[in-house]
Amino acid sequence: MKLYWSPRSPFVRKVMVAAHELGLADRIETIPTVVQMSKPHVELLQTNPVGKIPTLVLDDGTALFDSLTICEYLDSLAGGHRLFPREGAARWHVLTVHALGNGFMDLLVLWRNERDQPVAQQSPAWIENFRAKTATTLDRFEAMAPDLVATLVDIRHIVIGSALSYMDFRFAELGWRKGHTSLAAWHADFAQRPSMQATIGAAA
Amino acid sequence: MKLYWSPRSPFVRKVMVAAHELGLADRIETIPTVVQMSKPHVELLQTNPVGKIPTLVLDDGTALFDSLTICEYLDSLAGGHRLFPREGAARWHVLTVHALGNGFMDLLVLWRNERDQPVAQQSPAWIENFRAKTATTLDRFEAMAPDLVATLVDIRHIVIGSALSYMDFRFAELGWRKGHTSLAAWHADFAQRPSMQATIGAAA
Repeated sequence: MKLYWSPRSPFVRKVMVAAHELGLADRIETIPTVVQMSKPHVELLQTNPVGKIPTLVLDDGTALFDSLTICEYLDSLAGGHRLFPREGAARWHVLTVHALGNGFMDLLVLWRNERDQPVAQQSPAWIENFRAKTATTLDRFEAMAPDLVATLVDIRHIVIGSALSYMDFRFAELGWRKGHTSLAAWHADFAQRPSMQATIGAAA
Repeated sequence: MKLYWSPRSPFVRKVMVAAHELGLADRIETIPTVVQMSKPHVELLQTNPVGKIPTLVLDDGTALFDSLTICEYLDSLAGGHRLFPREGAARWHVLTVHALGNGFMDLLVLWRNERDQPVAQQSPAWIENFRAKTATTLDRFEAMAPDLVATLVDIRHIVIGSALSYMDFRFAELGWRKGHTSLAAWHADFAQRPSMQATIGAAA
């Protein structure tokens, strides 16, 4: 399998952490890929017309995306349902927490794109809105910390762990640990897992 | 069930079309909700910390999001696996086409947000990139049109149909039908389905 990959994308890191947790990382060949808001990546667009990474290409040429599809595919390849419960309330809960973590990554990437624009092209109102949503999301993660500690690693831990490490990488100045001490303690522990250590290049 | 809803969101329309196709629409109470890039929606943030619609609240108070999670939940509630194949290659294919349609919606919403900024805050390079990705995505949908015609409605048809109707609503001036005649013919037919007709307020 080949993966359009960047060391800086939190979505890519989520997939690579999942691959390590599932014992599949050595089956994935990474293709370093730079995607930008200001320029299409012509080769990637042939495979993924919206030009996003991660995009996985199977040995038969089939392309799979986005990061959620790839994570669920890898979970299936490893035997199934370690990262995603098969059905019922547990499944909807885990998918909703995943969507929260993934939506938070989306927000952080949009925020970074906005602040990296020339100053005249930035929208102060957007940036204030990103800040407000970041605060509510971190508070929600803090409330979830006891549950993260008490349960085996699944896609919830992986997406939240990857998102917080992305905050350390791109938004260190926000000091997210302040007021989120249970979350910080969980993250300090999670960040020591081999899957996170092996992917440090992959977002921080 | 209650759904944070807007008549203008393509992601909401996807969920409502799915609900109609599954015979569940009359179980959903819609809560008109305006979300903006420039202002947090305080009530919604209590339920969904990243402040996005659609967000579904079950009768027991459980919140489910994002639109993909909600569609899969509704599919399960209706008996299962009409919109999403259960497993195997068919599942990864359908999820990847969904991700393409959904990523295309994301792109169109970002594009619209950008063009609605004050002119000085717009990025011409971003807008050119949106245009390039829109062209590759429409070409891909055109190539898929025979398969859309030949298969029963699932989440692929719903996401592509909703995205194209959103183009008619917000980007009519692009004239997407030009050069995409098979896709246009499929869409003309799909748009006549009761599920699409019942949700016309919901994106066009």
